[in-house]
Amino acid sequence: MMGYSNIKTPIIIVNFKTYAEATGEKAVKLAEMAEKASVETGVCIGVSPQFVDIYKIARRVSIPVFSQHIDPIEYGSFTGHVLPESVKEAGAVGTLINHSERRLKLADIDAAIRRAREVGLISVVCTNNTPVSASAAALKPNMIAVEPPELIGTGIPVSKAKPEVVTSTVEAVKRINPEVIVLCGAGITNGDDVSAAIRLGTEGILVASGVVKAKDPYKVMVDFAEAALKA
Amino acid sequence: MMGYSNIKTPIIIVNFKTYAEATGEKAVKLAEMAEKASVETGVCIGVSPQFVDIYKIARRVSIPVFSQHIDPIEYGSFTGHVLPESVKEAGAVGTLINHSERRLKLADIDAAIRRAREVGLISVVCTNNTPVSASAAALKPNMIAVEPPELIGTGIPVSKAKPEVVTSTVEAVKRINPEVIVLCGAGITNGDDVSAAIRLGTEGILVASGVVKAKDPYKVMVDFAEAALKA
Amino acid sequence: MMGYSNIKTPIIIVNFKTYAEATGEKAVKLAEMAEKASVETGVCIGVSPQFVDIYKIARRVSIPVFSQHIDPIEYGSFTGHVLPESVKEAGAVGTLINHSERRLKLADIDAAIRRAREVGLISVVCTNNTPVSASAAALKPNMIAVEPPELIGTGIPVSKAKPEVVTSTVEAVKRINPEVIVLCGAGITNGDDVSAAIRLGTEGILVASGVVKAKDPYKVMVDFAEAALKA
Amino acid sequence: MMGYSNIKTPIIIVNFKTYAEATGEKAVKLAEMAEKASVETGVCIGVSPQFVDIYKIARRVSIPVFSQHIDPIEYGSFTGHVLPESVKEAGAVGTLINHSERRLKLADIDAAIRRAREVGLISVVCTNNTPVSASAAALKPNMIAVEPPELIGTGIPVSKAKPEVVTSTVEAVKRINPEVIVLCGAGITNGDDVSAAIRLGTEGILVASGVVKAKDPYKVMVDFAEAALKA
Repeated sequence: MMGYSNIKTPIIIVNFKTYAEATGEKAVKLAEMAEKASVETGVCIGVSPQFVDIYKIARRVSIPVFSQHIDPIEYGSFTGHVLPESVKEAGAVGTLINHSERRLKLADIDAAIRRAREVGLISVVCTNNTPVSASAAALKPNMIAVEPPELIGTGIPVSKAKPEVVTSTVEAVKRINPEVIVLCGAGITNGDDVSAAIRLGTEGILVASGVVKAKDPYKVMVDFAEAALKA
Repeated sequence: MMGYSNIKTPIIIVNFKTYAEATGEKAVKLAEMAEKASVETGVCIGVSPQFVDIYKIARRVSIPVFSQHIDPIEYGSFTGHVLPESVKEAGAVGTLINHSERRLKLADIDAAIRRAREVGLISVVCTNNTPVSASAAALKPNMIAVEPPELIGTGIPVSKAKPEVVTSTVEAVKRINPEVIVLCGAGITNGDDVSAAIRLGTEGILVASGVVKAKDPYKVMVDFAEAALKA
Repeated sequence: MMGYSNIKTPIIIVNFKTYAEATGEKAVKLAEMAEKASVETGVCIGVSPQFVDIYKIARRVSIPVFSQHIDPIEYGSFTGHVLPESVKEAGAVGTLINHSERRLKLADIDAAIRRAREVGLISVVCTNNTPVSASAAALKPNMIAVEPPELIGTGIPVSKAKPEVVTSTVEAVKRINPEVIVLCGAGITNGDDVSAAIRLGTEGILVASGVVKAKDPYKVMVDFAEAALKA
Repeated sequence: MMGYSNIKTPIIIVNFKTYAEATGEKAVKLAEMAEKASVETGVCIGVSPQFVDIYKIARRVSIPVFSQHIDPIEYGSFTGHVLPESVKEAGAVGTLINHSERRLKLADIDAAIRRAREVGLISVVCTNNTPVSASAAALKPNMIAVEPPELIGTGIPVSKAKPEVVTSTVEAVKRINPEVIVLCGAGITNGDDVSAAIRLGTEGILVASGVVKAKDPYKVMVDFAEAALKA
C-alpha cells in the first residue's frame, strides 16, 4: 500500500495507550508477540506504543510501528510537542491522529495529515461517528478508524452493537475519497468481532484493551489475524 | 540534591525543543557535547530532548536527562499522552512542566508535580513572571524556571533586560517555599548572562537557542559552565 | 432560506469580535447602523456581537443576530460555557462556529452544528482553507465562511489575494453538499472586494475590522451591500 | 468589601451553570428570588448566570451578579471570547475564574485576575484542593472558592465529608495572603452544611444544584442565609 512496503490489508493495529502492560520493556515484549503473530499468520499487525518507546520497539521488530499522535508542527520552538520528523527518525511508519483520548482541532487534523504526508508517515485518523468520518475523508488521510467512544473499552464490539455505524462510515468515506482505508474499533475482543468488522466493509481494526489486557495477547492476536483472513 | 545523585547546583539545563539541530542522531551528539562540557568543568549540565529521543540519549550519556513535559496521568487509557512512568523508565531523571510553549491548567500543574514526585522525577516548573512563580512555589516543585516569554529566543538576556523579575521571583519563591531551586531563562547567549543570573540569586539557567543554535554548542556550554562557577 | 424568514442571500455578516468600537452600547449603535444599511439597500446584513450583548441588540434591531460561538453542550453542569438554547432565547438566529480565533475540535464542530440545528440556530462554520472547507461541508452546516487566517485584519482582500482559494472552496463545498452557502472573509475593506467575492461564487461575506474599524461604518456597509447587489 | 458597596460577608454565591431551571427568563426569576431572600435575611446573596443573561438580570435585581468566566483578553480580535469590559458594562460586579468545569492555564488565571482588577470586577477563583488554593492565593484574587470536584453535585457536603480540606485551605490561603476571602462549595444542600462551612473558617459558600435544582429555591436560599448568620 502507498509505497509502504510492510503495510497491507487486512491490517490489525494494536494501540498500547498508556497501559502498564504495554509500557517500556513490557511494550517491547508485546511488540515481539505481535511480530510473531504476524509472521505466523501472514496478516499485517501494527503496534502503536507510547512516544518514548517508539525507538526501542522499532529497532527490535520489523512490523509497522505507529505513533499515538503527532503535532502539526515543523522544526522550531515547540517544547513538549511531538514533531513528525522525530517520530519518523525514531522508526515509526505511521501515526494515529485525533484518537478519542487526544482529540484535535479540525484545522490541526488537516495540518497533521499534511505533515504526515510530507515526512512519509501513514496517517490513521480516528473518528467517532459517520459524519465526522466523512469530514475526515475530505482531508485525504491514508486511513480512518471509526470508534464510537461509548463502546471503547467495554468489550461490546462496534461490529455487533452498531454495525450500521460501520457500514454507513465505509459508504460515506468511500463516496468522498475511495482511496481511504476504513478501519473500525471499540469493544473488539475476539475473532468473531474481527470477521464481522471485515464483512461490514472495513479493511481492518484498531484495538487496545482487547489485546493488551488479554491473558494471552499473542493468542488473541493470532485469533484476530486468522479471523481477518477468513472473513 | 534531593537524593538525585547526579544533580547539583549551579545547574544548566539545555532545552532541545523541536529544533532540527537537536532531533534524533543530532540530539544524541548534542547530549554528548553537554556531557563532555560537564565533565570538563565539573558543572551539572542537563539536557531536555524530545520524548522519542529520551531513551537513546539516556543510554549514551550519564548527565541528567529531562523530559520536556509530562501529563498528569496514571497507567490507563490515555492515548497520545506522556506517562510519567514511561519517561522515568526510558531514563529521564526529571521533567519540565508548564513550559511557555506547553502551558498547563493550574490543577494539572499541581497533579503533574505530584505525579513526578511519586515516580521519582525532578520537577522543573516554568513560569512567566513573579506572581506565577510564587503561585507555582506553593505547589512544591523541585525547581522553578522563570522565563519572561517576550524575551525567549531574542538574545536579550532576562538577567540584564529584566533583573528585577529575577530578583523578585527568587524572593517570592523563597518566601513561600525556601527549598525550591530557582532558575531563570530567556535570551541567554553568553557567560556574562549566566553570571548575572547567578548573582541575581538563581542557582542556574534554562537555555535553548543560545546553545542549540550556536555555531559551537560545546564551546558555549563550557563558557556558560565556567561563568556559573565564577559568579 | 431554510425557514429563517429574515435571512436571504447575498448576505453580509459583521463580526464585532471584542473590539472597543463594538462593545456594549457601542455594539447596539453599530447594530442599528447595520439595520439602517440593510433597510436602505434591501440586502441582508447580520451582526455577530459578543455574548453579553446579544440580548440587548436582538431587542433593538430586527436584522439577524449571530452568536460568535456556541459550545456543543446541553442543559446541565457546564459553568462558563455557551449553551445553544440560551443564545437562541436571547434572540440570536444563528451562530459562528470554529472562527479562527476560537477553533474547535472536529468532533465538537460536528456536535455544535447538530446542536444548532436542534435549537433552530443557523450554523456558519469558519474554515481556513479548501480541504478544511470540504471537511466542514460533510458535517452539513448551513453556511461555511472561508477565511485564510494570514489575511484576517490585513486589508488585503481574500477575493483578490487568493481568488483560487475562494473558487476552489466553492467547488469543493458544493461537490460534497450543494445546499451549503459559501461566504468568504479576510481583508475585505471596500465594495470592490465584495463584488469580487460574489463573482467568485460566494453568496456573501464575513467581515470584521473592515466595517467595525471604519471611520463611517454605516457608509461602508451601504457600499458593501450595493456592491453585493451589483456583482 | 473592597469598595464594592453591595458585597459583604458572609456571602452566598449561586452558580446558575447551564441548568434549564436557570436559563433565560427562568434565570431572571431565580435571581429575583435570590434578591428577595437577601433582602429578607440581610445576607449577601450573589448570582452567577450565563453570559447572555447577565445584562437582563443585572437590570432587574440589585444583588451582585457574577460572570461564570472571563478570558484574560483586552479589546481586540478575540471572536468568541469573554471580554472583562463587556461583562462589567453588562452589569456584573465580579466573575468566577477557573471553575472546575472551565479550568484555565495557570498563566491565564494570573492574567484574568489582573484584568478583573483593572476593570473593577471581583475575582472568585475556584480551586480543587489545598495546594491549588495556596497557589491561587499567591495571585491575589479577591476570593477563593475551594470545591473538591468529586463532591460537586453529589449532595455530600464538603463541609462534612472533607472538613480538613476546608480548614487546611483557609489556613494555607491566609498564610500566603490574609486578605483573600475563602468560600467553599460542593454538595451543599441545607443550612447545616452552610453553618458547618462557616464554622470551619470560610466566609461563605458557592452553590449550584443545591439551590437551582431545589423544589423551592427561595426557601433554600433563606435557609442558607439564616444558617450563615447563626454560624
